[in-house]
Amino acid sequence: MKNRIVTISREFGSGGRTVGKHVAQQLNIPCYDQELIEKIADQSGFTREFVQEKGEYTSYGGWFANAFSDRSPRGVSAQDYLWTIQRQVILDLAQQGPCVIVGRCADYILSDVADCLKVFIHADMEKRADRIVRLYGETDEQPLKRLKDKDKRRAAYYKFYTDAEWGDVHHCHMALDSGVLGIDLCVDLIVRAF
Amino acid sequence: MKNRIVTISREFGSGGRTVGKHVAQQLNIPCYDQELIEKIADQSGFTREFVQEKGEYTSYGGWFANAFSDRSPRGVSAQDYLWTIQRQVILDLAQQGPCVIVGRCADYILSDVADCLKVFIHADMEKRADRIVRLYGETDEQPLKRLKDKDKRRAAYYKFYTDAEWGDVHHCHMALDSGVLGIDLCVDLIVRAF
Repeated sequence: MKNRIVTISREFGSGGRTVGKHVAQQLNIPCYDQELIEKIADQSGFTREFVQEKGEYTSYGGWFANAFSDRSPRGVSAQDYLWTIQRQVILDLAQQGPCVIVGRCADYILSDVADCLKVFIHADMEKRADRIVRLYGETDEQPLKRLKDKDKRRAAYYKFYTDAEWGDVHHCHMALDSGVLGIDLCVDLIVRAF
Repeated sequence: MKNRIVTISREFGSGGRTVGKHVAQQLNIPCYDQELIEKIADQSGFTREFVQEKGEYTSYGGWFANAFSDRSPRGVSAQDYLWTIQRQVILDLAQQGPCVIVGRCADYILSDVADCLKVFIHADMEKRADRIVRLYGETDEQPLKRLKDKDKRRAAYYKFYTDAEWGDVHHCHMALDSGVLGIDLCVDLIVRAF
């Protein structure tokens, strides 16, 4: 069975989660974001915090470093185990019907098994920095540094598990700049394309 | 004066020119594609064929090779001269009112002087190969080889004159896969975003 699914990859602070939630509301289909983390936590035995962090980010900036970090002598890390659970949860959800899935390499995982509209949401550093300070407050770390670190570790995670470049225009059907277009227009365009 | 302009960068064979033409028709504004080539030819003294080829493609695949090719002892090539004319023609057009401009690094040239909606149209190799054979017929060269060569030389041209990566998701506001979404839907989404 091939279900129509919207996968949303997003840069940290671009508002991609919000876009996903609103798209799902307008299409009247479920959106898996926090719910996905909970399902993966339940099935893997890991905490939600671990799933949230380790299911999308490497510990280090480079995928090469990731390839050798925290691995047992047999070459499997907790993150690898989490990947297999995460992959299965996403495959199962895709079988259940149309939905929106935010992040977690769903675009790659569902490539051959579901009819996906693959969306990438991005925005320039300045707009994202404004947004994260507004939403998550200030921290000791400068917002631009936080963003760069998140971008780097998310791209490294994607590269390591999918062997593709994160945010490469060729791996998505629509890439939208939420900073210029605005959240509402992004939602509207995705709903229209779906 | 800041005019609203749609710039369309496109992979060879993706149908980006057709998208641009239809967007302009629907918005009832001019579309500069072939007209642009004619204007640039008139102002530069080069033939249309030269402008068509040398205003978007390097002779060789790498921008580094381009940096040293065909240059006079003073470091200026015919292609550099063409770039200055092309740049000025695009700047002048942007002053005249809203329009659609296809290709020729208009997204970069107008970055700071006009209010642009920057669009990138792409499609996978197979769909583009189908399209170029359908539109331009067979040649001695395999369609996939023709595409790879065009992609490489267009990217090298863009990199050389703008110092940015061609097709980088961060340099456009909307990147659309015309092979999956179809030409009509791409037109519709751009018109809506404009």
